[in-house]
Amino acid sequence: MPDLTRRGLVALLAAASAMPARAAPGRPLPSWTESPRRRAILDFAAKVTTPGAGFVPVEQRIATFDNDGALWCEQPIYTEAAFMADRIRALVEANPELRGRQPYKAVVERDLATLAKQPQANLLKMIDDTHAGMTVEAYEALARQWIDTATHPRFKRLYRELIYQPQLELLAFLRANGFATYIVSGGTIGFMRTFAERAYGIPPQQVIGWSGKALYQLQDDVGVIVSQPGVGVIDDKGGKPVNINLHIGRRPILAVGNSDGDLEMLQYCTTGDGPRLGLLVHHDDAAREYAYDRTSPIGTLDKALDEAPLHGWQVVSMKDDWSRVFPFEPARES
Amino acid sequence: MPDLTRRGLVALLAAASAMPARAAPGRPLPSWTESPRRRAILDFAAKVTTPGAGFVPVEQRIATFDNDGALWCEQPIYTEAAFMADRIRALVEANPELRGRQPYKAVVERDLATLAKQPQANLLKMIDDTHAGMTVEAYEALARQWIDTATHPRFKRLYRELIYQPQLELLAFLRANGFATYIVSGGTIGFMRTFAERAYGIPPQQVIGWSGKALYQLQDDVGVIVSQPGVGVIDDKGGKPVNINLHIGRRPILAVGNSDGDLEMLQYCTTGDGPRLGLLVHHDDAAREYAYDRTSPIGTLDKALDEAPLHGWQVVSMKDDWSRVFPFEPARES
Repeated sequence: MPDLTRRGLVALLAAASAMPARAAPGRPLPSWTESPRRRAILDFAAKVTTPGAGFVPVEQRIATFDNDGALWCEQPIYTEAAFMADRIRALVEANPELRGRQPYKAVVERDLATLAKQPQANLLKMIDDTHAGMTVEAYEALARQWIDTATHPRFKRLYRELIYQPQLELLAFLRANGFATYIVSGGTIGFMRTFAERAYGIPPQQVIGWSGKALYQLQDDVGVIVSQPGVGVIDDKGGKPVNINLHIGRRPILAVGNSDGDLEMLQYCTTGDGPRLGLLVHHDDAAREYAYDRTSPIGTLDKALDEAPLHGWQVVSMKDDWSRVFPFEPARES
Repeated sequence: MPDLTRRGLVALLAAASAMPARAAPGRPLPSWTESPRRRAILDFAAKVTTPGAGFVPVEQRIATFDNDGALWCEQPIYTEAAFMADRIRALVEANPELRGRQPYKAVVERDLATLAKQPQANLLKMIDDTHAGMTVEAYEALARQWIDTATHPRFKRLYRELIYQPQLELLAFLRANGFATYIVSGGTIGFMRTFAERAYGIPPQQVIGWSGKALYQLQDDVGVIVSQPGVGVIDDKGGKPVNINLHIGRRPILAVGNSDGDLEMLQYCTTGDGPRLGLLVHHDDAAREYAYDRTSPIGTLDKALDEAPLHGWQVVSMKDDWSRVFPFEPARES
């Protein structure tokens, strides 16, 4: 029996208010304001599910979403970079001779400016330092422990709470309309899989991402996958359509991104035959989240913003089109 | 209205008899004889679907099947090799200077003995010759045209009819028990996708296989994936568990193979926690299909046969455990 004393009731209410808000029955996409973007989504879903010229069979209703900046917050640094930084700090703790060397020094001193300027090779080295030589299970345990405890410096919330309420509603709406919803992200596939099912309802087989090399081994008579140094799969820019073809084998009819890293995925989606929808989340809301686009070192949205009108991509204004950004916020009057 | 004159009725009956037989209501796995292998499958499915110690949540009910030799016939050469050979003959037709050079000469002369002895580099070169520089759509059209017309030299049937009736029943039975069924094969992913959905009910996103390198390009303002020379993904032996982790992200609880190329997949499956089932199809039926194992150049089953008792893998005798091999055969008295 649950404890229904006053103390128990308070705890229950607190737990309930901390849960991500779900779409209320009635108006679909409740955290989307009455905008042409919301209308475009509703019209698209109606078209592909209604018998007629625009109908798309259910098995072809594939929707692909970028993750960082499209489903959750990616500022001031990618969440995964924060995870790697914490892993690096633990590594330096164990190996003090690393303390004076870059990029370790910048990580230990939380010097984000220096870190943001690191060449890709240094970041890849850090990925090897923190990812290689582990079984899938060992990595998952580390990543899960981190994602369940690490908090965002500005919002003082778990990183995994910084998911976009309107996108949760969009994912649920698409699935209710027969879509399979995929993540296609430059982030590490194993990292995303530790929260994607809980956070977004996206199971591991629908997560596509970066991965390192890996080898199968027998350890104590148990078959395991062990991560190796070096890049296995890159899932950014032109790599996104290639990996979509590899994993899904069908061209998506809806794609959602927020940066130039998503340009090719949106092109690939919207230059196919039949009804197509491309969405670009534009971060223009410094008050509730962040405002950045053409010159941002993270999530640069420049070329894709220029191409949007050519392909009919809908540019979603976080400020104007979303009445609520995060699940823990109260809904704004729209 | 259908034509129900005598002529129409005859045509309908002929069409019906040519359709793959479906499991009759009543006895599950009707083309499996009353053997310990059939019993092991039924017991396993009962255990993982029944609340209790062996219960497995539906999202973890992952079954992975090898294709060549496990779901369809792989003798006297892999079906895909026959496809490549036909593509090579067309290439030689267009470039007569290739006629005297190996491996082209062996292909043109249908010299299977020489072809079987070709080093892997030559075979990879042939794959590049026949696969590279094409869009996914162009390749699919070629492969589909071939698979819909090419016939097997012994059975005088379309290759794609040479699928195993008991395995169709096993796939359907597993899906009815909440399993997701995947192909994990050394064959080319795009080739298998042209028939896997029709033949086995396995959609493209559940096909894992070999693939070449690929690039995203804009061609006439349409985003396309273009195959490139060189190997992208190898999906054999230890590569199978690695690709299972990459595509599915969960360890299968049931794995089906027939050769040493499936050894690591079966190990990976059956050394996990909880109920697990490994099946090895043993080709011991020269009368109805082929008999081969330890010394066969195609589908060598040697080391995996030795390991089977160590891991409790069920060795399925095609001769004794299957009352029917192909869908077009009449059922044998069991």
